[in-house]
Amino acid sequence: MASSSSLYSNSPCAACKFLRRKCMPDCIFAPYFPPEEPQKFANVHKIFGASNVSKLLNEVQPHQREDAVNSLAYEAEARIKDPVYGCVGAISVLQRQVITLQKELDSTNADLIRYNEILPNHGGSSSPPPPPTFYYPSPWNNDDPLGDAYHTGGGGNI
Amino acid sequence: MASSSSLYSNSPCAACKFLRRKCMPDCIFAPYFPPEEPQKFANVHKIFGASNVSKLLNEVQPHQREDAVNSLAYEAEARIKDPVYGCVGAISVLQRQVITLQKELDSTNADLIRYNEILPNHGGSSSPPPPPTFYYPSPWNNDDPLGDAYHTGGGGNI
Repeated sequence: MASSSSLYSNSPCAACKFLRRKCMPDCIFAPYFPPEEPQKFANVHKIFGASNVSKLLNEVQPHQREDAVNSLAYEAEARIKDPVYGCVGAISVLQRQVITLQKELDSTNADLIRYNEILPNHGGSSSPPPPPTFYYPSPWNNDDPLGDAYHTGGGGNI
Repeated sequence: MASSSSLYSNSPCAACKFLRRKCMPDCIFAPYFPPEEPQKFANVHKIFGASNVSKLLNEVQPHQREDAVNSLAYEAEARIKDPVYGCVGAISVLQRQVITLQKELDSTNADLIRYNEILPNHGGSSSPPPPPTFYYPSPWNNDDPLGDAYHTGGGGNI
């Protein structure tokens, strides 16, 4: 049975098929948008536009292009699923989860320190638990990118 | 001294100024792209294209447009800062932080339970600590959207 790649080896890539143009051997899209994944290109085209995707691919190093396309496809799918927040909604949820978990961990570590003070020669470990050292930098800053409106379901005022 | 809004009340919005067109009273961009923030529109135009932004604004409810513009601006700035990963890089980092923190919390809670078994009538609290109940769903799935290549600094193979 023919493999997927041989089946499609003479087909235009998903981008050229979508754009109804001839897929040339040096097509910038072809390595990342195989014909068997038409939705991947349709999504990035809808959200970013083929021209912007092409420009971006030309701006990054060839070895970075696969990751760039995959992150664009991820963002595009998120924006199609959630036109208002896109994948920024996920960042906001995750930032709050990190803050909540860190607070919980700080509190639990404080309890462990108290136990160690009461019972210095017993317990599961011979030394007191280490203080919480987990560092969680936000990629840009520690502010929630969307604020409370996102989390309470409210919208902006107009 | 004139306020910022009165200073700019007769100016075209940042989008119309950028696109060199007359800013009409019903301009879809004007409420969200004030003339004093030219970079905000320049960024979303570069990454998504003015036409796509306009389409998206027309697809969402008027009360959701401010949030939609802000999330687009956030995504666009992230993509300009990091053309390969954009804000998907932040999602990946945050997902790993949540997993690490949850493991740390599970381990610390297990230590606390051991202490309570050794010393049931002492300690800071009279009842054993509750089991970890924090639930952290990923917005789409629990897979890291970028995989190890992103975190180790490696790129895709071509």
